[in-house]
Amino acid sequence: MGVITIERKVLEKNDEIARQNREIFKHHGIFVINLVSSPGSGKTSILERTLEHLRGTLPLAVIEGDVQTDLDAQRVARYGVPAVQIVTRGGCHLEANLVRDALTRIDLTGIRLLIIENVGNLVCPSNYDLGEAMKAVVVSTTEGDDKPLKYPAMFRSASIMIINKIDLLPYVDSDLARLKGNALRINPELTVFETSAKTGAGIGQWCDWLKSKLSR
Amino acid sequence: MGVITIERKVLEKNDEIARQNREIFKHHGIFVINLVSSPGSGKTSILERTLEHLRGTLPLAVIEGDVQTDLDAQRVARYGVPAVQIVTRGGCHLEANLVRDALTRIDLTGIRLLIIENVGNLVCPSNYDLGEAMKAVVVSTTEGDDKPLKYPAMFRSASIMIINKIDLLPYVDSDLARLKGNALRINPELTVFETSAKTGAGIGQWCDWLKSKLSR
Repeated sequence: MGVITIERKVLEKNDEIARQNREIFKHHGIFVINLVSSPGSGKTSILERTLEHLRGTLPLAVIEGDVQTDLDAQRVARYGVPAVQIVTRGGCHLEANLVRDALTRIDLTGIRLLIIENVGNLVCPSNYDLGEAMKAVVVSTTEGDDKPLKYPAMFRSASIMIINKIDLLPYVDSDLARLKGNALRINPELTVFETSAKTGAGIGQWCDWLKSKLSR
Repeated sequence: MGVITIERKVLEKNDEIARQNREIFKHHGIFVINLVSSPGSGKTSILERTLEHLRGTLPLAVIEGDVQTDLDAQRVARYGVPAVQIVTRGGCHLEANLVRDALTRIDLTGIRLLIIENVGNLVCPSNYDLGEAMKAVVVSTTEGDDKPLKYPAMFRSASIMIINKIDLLPYVDSDLARLKGNALRINPELTVFETSAKTGAGIGQWCDWLKSKLSR
């Protein structure tokens, strides 16, 4: 019981800081996406394709979350976009206070889109509001079509599902219709995109949708 | 600080129950593997192939861990092997006490091999000893070759690495040699297997190795 009380307090504290982050984003007119997924679903590759597509058309920034290494921030920095790496050193998810600290290292003036790439984990990040406008869960075709049923909290907390690696569909047993059906059974409100970060398929639609969400 | 103290107590309590589980396994002469990985790496498919290969040759049992659903225990039960499903209801890893409870639902007499399939999560399960002889981390070729660097604790706590979905190597950008190199840099003691649960490649070597580990 002691542990549960502490956990509730941790979550309440997190929610309070997330509210403050949300105020900051609102003040600057920044649309914020929290990208979540299993390790290896292709979050960073989708992010790179997104930056490739959007850079020059609107000012954006990236916060990278990883358990260890700044490999992802290095990948992202190649696109000439402000990128801050959070290393959780064993922590299994980002928390609002880590994002708050990262925000102090970005000049938010004029930024319109902020993409936060969470730690690769299909369980824990679902509980932690970072102050984002919405969560986008990335699921790869290679992971099997049962993942929404087995990890429902994440699909319930997300507004977007990006099905990535559609170029591998011919070589895997996953059924795309069943994957979508399972996800929509858990969360009928999900907006679904199908992408291949490798071929670039679907990235245009995803970026057009992102642009349609910008507040100004 | 309060939270850290509680976490330490949780881990100490877990380690104590894991020691008791280990005594039970020793008493019955059971070799126990704790299968860990990201969601969708193919743990359950490898398990199915392993059961297909080993059933009839030695008595074995399975404990399935999932956040939600008993889909995996259903898959495993088709092989006529005793299988118990633990549903963590949101919990991001198995703990020793959940395994202890599951053990009361299996007749351990004569069992020589127990495979525990953990929740799909490349972070949290690394901290929780279940009483197993060793952890085997499954990593799929589709997840990219940087995962050992980004999730080092899991690769450090494992004794085995199974690289699965080698049938997809021609279609992905992962470099098998780099993946192995990164893993061995984190943990030079890792024993590495390469498998495809789809084609059955490598399953024979993995099963032969398992048999060589049995205590009698």
